[in-house]
Amino acid sequence: MKVAVMGAGGGGVALASHLAQQGFQTALYAPPEHAKNAYAISEQQGEIHITGDHPLTCKVDTVTLDIRQAIHGAEIIFMVVPAFGQEALFENMLPFLVDEQVIAVMPGNFATYPLQYMLEKVRPTLDITLIESSSLLHVAEIEEPGTVHIASQHKNLLEFSVYPEYQTQKAQTLLQKCMPETHIKIVNNYLAIGLNSPNGIVHPALTILNCGYIESTHGEFYFYKDGMTPAVCKIINALDKERQAIGKAYGLDLPALLDIIHHYYGINALSLRDFALTSAVHNQRYSAPTCYSHRYISEDVPYLLVPWLSLAKAANVNTPVLKSIISIATELVDCNFVKKGRLISHFLPSQPIVPLHLSSQQAV
Amino acid sequence: MKVAVMGAGGGGVALASHLAQQGFQTALYAPPEHAKNAYAISEQQGEIHITGDHPLTCKVDTVTLDIRQAIHGAEIIFMVVPAFGQEALFENMLPFLVDEQVIAVMPGNFATYPLQYMLEKVRPTLDITLIESSSLLHVAEIEEPGTVHIASQHKNLLEFSVYPEYQTQKAQTLLQKCMPETHIKIVNNYLAIGLNSPNGIVHPALTILNCGYIESTHGEFYFYKDGMTPAVCKIINALDKERQAIGKAYGLDLPALLDIIHHYYGINALSLRDFALTSAVHNQRYSAPTCYSHRYISEDVPYLLVPWLSLAKAANVNTPVLKSIISIATELVDCNFVKKGRLISHFLPSQPIVPLHLSSQQAV
Repeated sequence: MKVAVMGAGGGGVALASHLAQQGFQTALYAPPEHAKNAYAISEQQGEIHITGDHPLTCKVDTVTLDIRQAIHGAEIIFMVVPAFGQEALFENMLPFLVDEQVIAVMPGNFATYPLQYMLEKVRPTLDITLIESSSLLHVAEIEEPGTVHIASQHKNLLEFSVYPEYQTQKAQTLLQKCMPETHIKIVNNYLAIGLNSPNGIVHPALTILNCGYIESTHGEFYFYKDGMTPAVCKIINALDKERQAIGKAYGLDLPALLDIIHHYYGINALSLRDFALTSAVHNQRYSAPTCYSHRYISEDVPYLLVPWLSLAKAANVNTPVLKSIISIATELVDCNFVKKGRLISHFLPSQPIVPLHLSSQQAV
Repeated sequence: MKVAVMGAGGGGVALASHLAQQGFQTALYAPPEHAKNAYAISEQQGEIHITGDHPLTCKVDTVTLDIRQAIHGAEIIFMVVPAFGQEALFENMLPFLVDEQVIAVMPGNFATYPLQYMLEKVRPTLDITLIESSSLLHVAEIEEPGTVHIASQHKNLLEFSVYPEYQTQKAQTLLQKCMPETHIKIVNNYLAIGLNSPNGIVHPALTILNCGYIESTHGEFYFYKDGMTPAVCKIINALDKERQAIGKAYGLDLPALLDIIHHYYGINALSLRDFALTSAVHNQRYSAPTCYSHRYISEDVPYLLVPWLSLAKAANVNTPVLKSIISIATELVDCNFVKKGRLISHFLPSQPIVPLHLSSQQAV
């Protein structure tokens, strides 16, 4: 079976190595403007060096800057790119997609909405399945071109939504085949997937509340055990409660962040602070951003917090902490995130917002 | 001439020592529940030890826990207590005040409103003058009981408002006599005084954006040069612009924070960041709070940021950063600051808010 991984950052390369190890024919694609890693892996004849708890070297079959070549014949195509690159990549993929292909966006950041919108507009008769997850399979980052540091083997559980809903069984079987040691949980509501992102709950608040620390030390501290102090955890927990309240307004009983973390990493921390202090995965090395204009702000605010805020506003849910994090991020990087972010209302301008895949029993 | 200083924290003791050095008969009062310093100074026979750039020992005439004794015969009574203690202290002083006494609240934090309200209610015929400043005379803190560390000799300029306005000349003469080396500037608008507080502009934002840093290091870093990084300065500057916009809505042309700092310290920094890096006064020692439940939050938010927000709301000024700082502070210490803070509207429930001393020429 052929699989394609679109995106050669830390998450993409880690996933490609995981798929190659399962014995799949694996193609790794990088867009020409972000191809540093792809060039290095190509020069290594497709070899990827993994460091971390389980160091190894494995080999992908194809490394390419050619979209058509990457996705040709692939049963499943993983899009592992920053949220702001999803729509452009999908637009470039669209002409070459064929019926029955499955596209899994990891993490989704509410990608299902814009992608199915583009699909219906450009190729309405194409029969493909769109999947999105709330997280990546690994905690990984590029160490140097061609080498990726993977802090944990893989997550214990991953949640996905599937569109259209009748493809759920097909999607689940395929995902389980690709990640045999991970429990694949299908949540048939892409709003729940976007709302359950730990990145959104943790990253922007943690970055802002450590703004001086980050700049003063250039990120040379343990982001979790040093930065996620009791007071910072208080704010993250407050944000988490607001997120759950938003879910509730849409009929969704969302798990608390601590439960999400427990399932992902198979641990059992007593509190967020306890998790921050004891998680081996998150405390292997200095992992604080080196400056505040980092994807923890530039990606997680517009593609997670802004959709959350647009859902909160539409349902009249009061979210002072969520608003505050967005306002401060807006000032920090001089970008009108609320205007430029992924507003759910963009895709449903004249309709009330309801979850795309909400089955009638679940509907509010 | 007899002067009284009510409050024996760092600011009060520093001011008392300053007044004693000018040769005034000086009484230092501490409330019984915060009398640690007063006891120490009393055991030293009224001697105050000053450390810092200009170390010396000087002597006050009286140290007392008896309000009546402290203020009896004093021409001017300085109230140098945390904002949350102002009203209780004033209530206790009220029965013993006599005509022609002058009360100077340093810093005021919008104290004129509640104090003149109490005065009119309890002793409407009493002829006293209420003064408030936007800052203390010194950057000072208690080093150990009986010893205060003064980082700079005194401020170059201090701004005061005077109520009632016709007492301006008397107040100015008296203040200038007490602080002969400081330029006394009377701004006949107590709103401007409350809005020009550097504490409000700097402290809460600086504390919140260094929340993890503070807790992780227990405050062992230079609050200004380490904590007031370029990104943090960006947020402080954004808050400062919102504060100026609030002033503008009330016809006040407020100086920017950098100008206020220049006047206070007689320096000429190119930017806030330049000030943070180069101010000797602010970088003599680790001065970060040791935890987030510090007066930078518990005092500066309810007694400065909340009145600013109430002024902004009444005048329909958009202040997203101000609101964000208040919201995050509220979550941090689990206190409803907006409800419990000094809302200007409390004192003027049925009237539009206009500056108390705004002369007709300046009125909007």
